Amino acid sequence: MFERIDHIGVAVEDLDAALALYERDFAIELAHRETIESQGVEALLLDLGENHVELLAPLGEDTPVGRFLVKRGPGIHHVAYQTADIVAELARLKAAGLTVIDEQPRRGVRNSRVAFLHPSSTGGVLTEITEPSHS
Amino acid sequence: MFERIDHIGVAVEDLDAALALYERDFAIELAHRETIESQGVEALLLDLGENHVELLAPLGEDTPVGRFLVKRGPGIHHVAYQTADIVAELARLKAAGLTVIDEQPRRGVRNSRVAFLHPSSTGGVLTEITEPSHS
Repeated sequence: MFERIDHIGVAVEDLDAALALYERDFAIELAHRETIESQGVEALLLDLGENHVELLAPLGEDTPVGRFLVKRGPGIHHVAYQTADIVAELARLKAAGLTVIDEQPRRGVRNSRVAFLHPSSTGGVLTEITEPSHS
Repeated sequence: MFERIDHIGVAVEDLDAALALYERDFAIELAHRETIESQGVEALLLDLGENHVELLAPLGEDTPVGRFLVKRGPGIHHVAYQTADIVAELARLKAAGLTVIDEQPRRGVRNSRVAFLHPSSTGGVLTEITEPSHS
């Protein structure tokens, strides 16, 4: 089951400009910065209660977030729901007939485990499920 | 200040099909259904811990959500942050130079008070602030 909205992922062209908005104007606290080469992205994670905002800047145009920016411009890229057991949850969603992008959970920011569902089976919403790190 | 992500708003073409996904496959509980004529929308609100998912179907093409669907197709329409004092928060954001769509809070679903910020000043993200009903 899903326990909460873990985060929204926001595609941005300029991390520092985005950070000024979210940290200064929205007063959402920066918690973590990480480059994930395998995903072609630099990510900032901000804490908002038990939720987060993930700001994503592409490392190049030929990356998932880079292609999103070219096609749609900056904006909300995905939503992530938190679960305590991503293996069971991913199996359950596959059994329900949803199309997965990740057949197995993979590593996400801050040592989370994540898997994405394809928007074609989720009403156009790129949907992530995430199990936070227990460390 | 923002206390949490209150909800994501998802634009859908068919509320019943969307409800099947969110209620049956995602096991997010339907809490409220409401038609807001002034906004040209029928809304379903689902509870997920302290967060919500708001499914939005347009009452016609010439409505904000109707135009969104024509232009972008179904998907995430906006994010809403929860605040305990929307009047103070809206004044603070205007003073910070952000462009507001609603100069004053207006009524949202389930007797909340809401105001939208224009995506041109929020990195392409249609951003709502909301103060829940205290009743």
